[in-house]
Amino acid sequence: MTTSTALLLADLAGVAVFAASGASAGVAKRLDLFGVVFVGFVAALGGGIFRDLVIDEAPPLAFADWRYATTAVLTAAVVFRLHPQLARLRTTVLVLDAAGLGLFTVTGTLKALDAQVPPVGACLIGMLTGIGGGLGRDLLTGEIPVVLRREIYAVAALSGAVLVVALDALDRTGPVPLTVAAAFVFGLRLIALRRRWSAPVAGVRSPPVDPPRR
Amino acid sequence: MTTSTALLLADLAGVAVFAASGASAGVAKRLDLFGVVFVGFVAALGGGIFRDLVIDEAPPLAFADWRYATTAVLTAAVVFRLHPQLARLRTTVLVLDAAGLGLFTVTGTLKALDAQVPPVGACLIGMLTGIGGGLGRDLLTGEIPVVLRREIYAVAALSGAVLVVALDALDRTGPVPLTVAAAFVFGLRLIALRRRWSAPVAGVRSPPVDPPRR
Amino acid sequence: MTTSTALLLADLAGVAVFAASGASAGVAKRLDLFGVVFVGFVAALGGGIFRDLVIDEAPPLAFADWRYATTAVLTAAVVFRLHPQLARLRTTVLVLDAAGLGLFTVTGTLKALDAQVPPVGACLIGMLTGIGGGLGRDLLTGEIPVVLRREIYAVAALSGAVLVVALDALDRTGPVPLTVAAAFVFGLRLIALRRRWSAPVAGVRSPPVDPPRR
Repeated sequence: MTTSTALLLADLAGVAVFAASGASAGVAKRLDLFGVVFVGFVAALGGGIFRDLVIDEAPPLAFADWRYATTAVLTAAVVFRLHPQLARLRTTVLVLDAAGLGLFTVTGTLKALDAQVPPVGACLIGMLTGIGGGLGRDLLTGEIPVVLRREIYAVAALSGAVLVVALDALDRTGPVPLTVAAAFVFGLRLIALRRRWSAPVAGVRSPPVDPPRR
Repeated sequence: MTTSTALLLADLAGVAVFAASGASAGVAKRLDLFGVVFVGFVAALGGGIFRDLVIDEAPPLAFADWRYATTAVLTAAVVFRLHPQLARLRTTVLVLDAAGLGLFTVTGTLKALDAQVPPVGACLIGMLTGIGGGLGRDLLTGEIPVVLRREIYAVAALSGAVLVVALDALDRTGPVPLTVAAAFVFGLRLIALRRRWSAPVAGVRSPPVDPPRR
Repeated sequence: MTTSTALLLADLAGVAVFAASGASAGVAKRLDLFGVVFVGFVAALGGGIFRDLVIDEAPPLAFADWRYATTAVLTAAVVFRLHPQLARLRTTVLVLDAAGLGLFTVTGTLKALDAQVPPVGACLIGMLTGIGGGLGRDLLTGEIPVVLRREIYAVAALSGAVLVVALDALDRTGPVPLTVAAAFVFGLRLIALRRRWSAPVAGVRSPPVDPPRR
């Protein structure tokens, strides 16, 4: 298996994981089959479409390579069909979602750097590639984006993007350092989930014994 | 009347119909005149703006040709003024909306193929051109997009896009086959409305005597 | 100080003001630090990103020049920290927001004209640059965009854009006429705030003594 095949497979794994998260959200809102597939599509490919629009790669990869859309649609359809069983897999989905976040952040940042975007912009584009699909999923289903409310999801992505820009400045963008960067985001997100870390909330400094439910 | 004049008129008819649907939604939310016109503008031109961004046609037709925006704005303003009478025209609006869906899907798919987007991507872009305006309308007015919840709206668009890609592969993209494709979407949507067809909902296989209200 | 330095400073002032408005909305929704910063970023830079996508300037200025994102992020973080004190500054924020609206509308319209967009399209792009950030802010925080519901916010922007297009047609796009155009939007918006002007609402012609609360 060549490096580029490995990268493609990893990318498609990220697409599948995010499609599953979007489809689950759609099922929870009792959408019909098409609605579930559509939310899965947006969650899986929305971040990448935004990235490609911003770096002027036309048409976006989601439309240029049929394997991306097909992976997203099939995964979402499977989730729709199997949803009762998947409810027990919630932890698995969160873990896979963290893996997808790491992967999309790293590839998004790299693509932005390749398109000559300066460092600060490349970090932002990388982070938005990682979190963009989840944003679209939550807007479609009428929720305040969970990425704005919970734990350090986006901060993990941003840290990973900064790491990729630093590696690029040192000319160390081989497979090993990039895998480490993706693993860094993945690990940070898992630790945050485990410890329920979150960024501070204005006016709620040290919550008392019985913290208010959000 | 030449073919291209006929196409332009048909396109502007689609713009007017979608502008009317957006303006009606805005009136229902008790928006002011500008708000109603703005929602009408987004409903009429949002799908096409997305399409042009994705196939890198700059500026999008909605900004490049004044007749598009003017048609959208005037139609929305008329709906604002005449709204009480229009309430009785609900069926007419649904029928016109189905016609607009067929038209925008066909032209969107064709434009994507012309821009060298591969078949699967062109189908998706065509479908999104057809349903995009309605998505924007519902997001602006704080609704879960109706396209995700009701009947086979988007499936009709997707079927039409697939048909256009097939016709293109057979090199049959003259006015007659394309009109047939638009009519196919139109008819599918009308039959769905008439029979209240819809895609299956997860976990609600065969509803009992008293189905839950959505 | 050269003209272009003055323009940059004015532009960054607009970014800061809109970032403050977005951050305030985020604090009101009790988002965490990252959420507040993210909503501030979207409010400050969303309109410009849309403008640059539409006129095909890649990457958008928000990603190409680090000073834009940095200004937005720092301002939002300061608002997060100082929020209790800022509550008393509400009038100041509204006034600054009106100034930002004038500035972004003028620069957005000019950039569209420079990119060869025809007059009607350039007016629309200018208006959307001015109001786009606020739209994004309200969509993220789950509100029907306030620009669709209140006073003549967007009409002020559109009037300013029309004025800029007229000045451009007369070849009078020096600093003085453009400042006058920005001041015109600013003044119109302030008068509207002061007098609570608003566009008419369908079916609510002359409200009686006790107008219904919206």
